[in-house]
Amino acid sequence: MVVIPLESRRNPEKQPSLTKIHELVSRDLIEVNETIQHSLSSRVPLIGELASHIIQGGGKRIRPMITLAAAHLCKYKGSQHILLAACVELIHTATLLHDDVVDSSNLRRGSSTANALWGNQPSVLVGDFLFSQSFQLMVEAGSIKILSILADASSVIAEGEVMQLLNSNNTDTTEDAYLDVVIAKTASLFAASARIGAVLSNRPQAEEAALESYGKNLGIAFQLVDDVLDYSAKEASLGKAIGDDFRDGKITLPVVLAFRRGNEKERQFWDRSLVRGDQKPGDLERAQSLLQKHGTLSDTLERAQHYGAIARDALAIFPPSAEKEAFLSVIDFCISRGH
Amino acid sequence: MVVIPLESRRNPEKQPSLTKIHELVSRDLIEVNETIQHSLSSRVPLIGELASHIIQGGGKRIRPMITLAAAHLCKYKGSQHILLAACVELIHTATLLHDDVVDSSNLRRGSSTANALWGNQPSVLVGDFLFSQSFQLMVEAGSIKILSILADASSVIAEGEVMQLLNSNNTDTTEDAYLDVVIAKTASLFAASARIGAVLSNRPQAEEAALESYGKNLGIAFQLVDDVLDYSAKEASLGKAIGDDFRDGKITLPVVLAFRRGNEKERQFWDRSLVRGDQKPGDLERAQSLLQKHGTLSDTLERAQHYGAIARDALAIFPPSAEKEAFLSVIDFCISRGH
Repeated sequence: MVVIPLESRRNPEKQPSLTKIHELVSRDLIEVNETIQHSLSSRVPLIGELASHIIQGGGKRIRPMITLAAAHLCKYKGSQHILLAACVELIHTATLLHDDVVDSSNLRRGSSTANALWGNQPSVLVGDFLFSQSFQLMVEAGSIKILSILADASSVIAEGEVMQLLNSNNTDTTEDAYLDVVIAKTASLFAASARIGAVLSNRPQAEEAALESYGKNLGIAFQLVDDVLDYSAKEASLGKAIGDDFRDGKITLPVVLAFRRGNEKERQFWDRSLVRGDQKPGDLERAQSLLQKHGTLSDTLERAQHYGAIARDALAIFPPSAEKEAFLSVIDFCISRGH
Repeated sequence: MVVIPLESRRNPEKQPSLTKIHELVSRDLIEVNETIQHSLSSRVPLIGELASHIIQGGGKRIRPMITLAAAHLCKYKGSQHILLAACVELIHTATLLHDDVVDSSNLRRGSSTANALWGNQPSVLVGDFLFSQSFQLMVEAGSIKILSILADASSVIAEGEVMQLLNSNNTDTTEDAYLDVVIAKTASLFAASARIGAVLSNRPQAEEAALESYGKNLGIAFQLVDDVLDYSAKEASLGKAIGDDFRDGKITLPVVLAFRRGNEKERQFWDRSLVRGDQKPGDLERAQSLLQKHGTLSDTLERAQHYGAIARDALAIFPPSAEKEAFLSVIDFCISRGH
């Protein structure tokens, strides 16, 4: 196994990016941002402040861009895709707020988290508010089928978050069990974000299923790369603190693989640092060197490429178009991103 | 002002109860409980355990009973009222879970809270799961208008919770500001629970508005009595720890009134104990005696009776019926309950 240093991938000229999809939906995205801004307005100023902090905190808007581009790919002519794109971003943001509370995180995308700035109490409650607002946008969009898809996704996300919490500090987690968590907590919203573009356009079931599969596999790849970045990216470029997963005792795929491939002494190290949470100075560096030793960061990237390939194949039923090109470029970005 | 000791109201023979409404909807309620049970089932066992603990923790089921009885009052013949009654109970339960996390409460209805037993992290996430499940039930019921009413109510509840948090430890809170919080965090769900019974039955706007007004004012009365009970009920009968609001620094109506009526020394006491949170042994008893001295518990009960009277008048447009009687008896229960 050869470790591919992420740094070498970061030539800005050649680096896959979100430029293509962004150009495709940039006009829509302005309206999406206005819709979100309107949803954040509340007679309670703290809600707007706290929510704006996280919404404007430099997220990539990848989920709403997928919804918008899926609507374009399916030749949708109405305006409900704006509401739905805003909706998926609000669901995502609500889960981020609650995630940061659950993980006691202090830094996200290079800024202080809402819970670090305002405390856990308003973060929990403003998360609930955003979730309710997302739900209002869906109702406004008016499709019972789409409501059902997004309600299902929301339940599955919550289940995935609980599963992740239970797997925390558990080195017995298998790759399959870990993948179940990733599918539930991350891939399900990517899948719904893509699928609703086809539903909105009344496209045949095959296209709905294709976009759903694209979103799901893209989401898995996205999360696996996220797991790698948590151990290897530069703090400034990732925008979140390196080693967060390690400090939280999260058993992500690089660790699942390293635990299984490690010797008894190494397993004792993982058990002490992640299961018992007894972390000493230098432990993060030791963890990084064990992941390097067993090549599990590059193997996790290979797994991500596998899911990226499935996402690519899912799009095969669509004829060539600028929209399809944009979707393919998102896969490239997700499996090779350095942030 | 004469203080009416709550104890004297507790003759079980004469005590208003929920018996009438319960008899009216008892068969429906079995189906509601089955629907809830089904909603709690998850491939993640902890979700079912934690959610069952709070759902089966002896709640009065007052909100779902109102939805069911409103459907009966409006001569509804379908079965969607079961789904919607389960839905409002799930929304209520989700907010309880998050409330207990925000307040760090250890006891609710005489049992340990979920956060005390399982910790804050799963309580936040299972709250999200319940909220998502409530949303799925609404979608299943299939009415966009009802979805919109419940989505609005959910947003308003979250706003009310944030307002309450901001008013905590703030003795400048006015009676009006306090009432805004009560309307948002408690009365809005009571109002929606009653109103959707009329919407489901396609009744005229006047009946919808009447049931909404009934629910809203009943909800205000219910909450004000709750505030009184927090300082005066016996722990066993209230089922939650006495003095919770005091310990949490919550500025409820009895305190709002006592602060305004108090002398400088008394205000310093409220500021120390509630604003600065500097509480000493004997402070709860001192607070209770100040509320007694200024008669603010009995005045809060009088305010509750005022809202109960509005709720009663709202029902005037409905002809006499067993359902109407049941609704009236719920008002009597809410303003004179000892638990």
